[in-house]
Amino acid sequence: MQLWFDFASTYSYVAVLRVFALPPEALPASGIEWKPFLLGPLFNEQSGLRDSPFNVFPVRGRYMWRDLERLCAKLGFPWRKPGVFPRHSVLAARVACALERDPLLPEFVRAAFLANFAEDRDISDPAVLASLLPGLDEAIQRATSPEVKAKLRENTDEARRLGLFGAPSFIVGGELFFGQDRLDDALEWADDLKS
Amino acid sequence: MQLWFDFASTYSYVAVLRVFALPPEALPASGIEWKPFLLGPLFNEQSGLRDSPFNVFPVRGRYMWRDLERLCAKLGFPWRKPGVFPRHSVLAARVACALERDPLLPEFVRAAFLANFAEDRDISDPAVLASLLPGLDEAIQRATSPEVKAKLRENTDEARRLGLFGAPSFIVGGELFFGQDRLDDALEWADDLKS
Repeated sequence: MQLWFDFASTYSYVAVLRVFALPPEALPASGIEWKPFLLGPLFNEQSGLRDSPFNVFPVRGRYMWRDLERLCAKLGFPWRKPGVFPRHSVLAARVACALERDPLLPEFVRAAFLANFAEDRDISDPAVLASLLPGLDEAIQRATSPEVKAKLRENTDEARRLGLFGAPSFIVGGELFFGQDRLDDALEWADDLKS
Repeated sequence: MQLWFDFASTYSYVAVLRVFALPPEALPASGIEWKPFLLGPLFNEQSGLRDSPFNVFPVRGRYMWRDLERLCAKLGFPWRKPGVFPRHSVLAARVACALERDPLLPEFVRAAFLANFAEDRDISDPAVLASLLPGLDEAIQRATSPEVKAKLRENTDEARRLGLFGAPSFIVGGELFFGQDRLDDALEWADDLKS
């Protein structure tokens, strides 16, 4: 199962913590493929937006902030409304791309989301990212290399081709499921594919 | 629990059938208050749209149609993509307003949604609405009276005041839950209020 996320996305935070809270037997046999991408270009192309829809449309924003607080309370997840929203997520996404084949990747994803949405730390600051886990220095250095920058652009291109319009999104057997609400549906779909 | 819906809304269809499929003990003690309103004015005021976002933003639309088909298959609900989307839902919403204190209301809501999304019938046609259930003639006649027209406008005004931006939406103890995905959360909230 692919989990497509943007480090600035509030509901991606919930989805990622929910995946980490799953018992091992609930995970798809093929595991989770972590797919960082950038929502901004897709929002801009698809809807002409230059900011998060939660900022552009305040009625939606008010609901989202209350919903996040309520969801995290229900699920037992830490939550602090970020002082800046959306956080600039490009560097963190590039670090995730640099870690593509590294066993540190899942833990980095989790730690960067917690830094943004539980600790209100600035994940666009390389020093903040470096402090999240030991062993990230090399990935943070490579994050601004042409190869890694290209990798994030390719991910965003792939997201566009897959018909994504928001995050989190799950891809299972060619099917798109949008939103943290649909994690269980995506997992069921993965389970049905096995049998 | 209030269930706010627009007869043109695909996910409202799913929410309504899900409510009808609930076992009696899962329903809130206070029952369901059926709240018809019009999404169009809110979409227009909040986002400047003059059509369904699923038409304006084709990437979202493609996902929604596939999602509806998949959701209905999973839930065992009948589904036929309407030939016209969104259907003009004003008349059906007015009939629902005219039935506000009538025991026929829930069955009318269900039948009108099925007509639109399972039978591809034109619910803007009074003859189609009259054929849904016996005993609707008087409500259909009153639907275009100034009182009933005003009632639907008042509902849409109330939806705006409550911070609604889409349908279905649930209101429980002053809390807003948006989307059919959140029916269970809304029911849990209602249950917690009891205790």
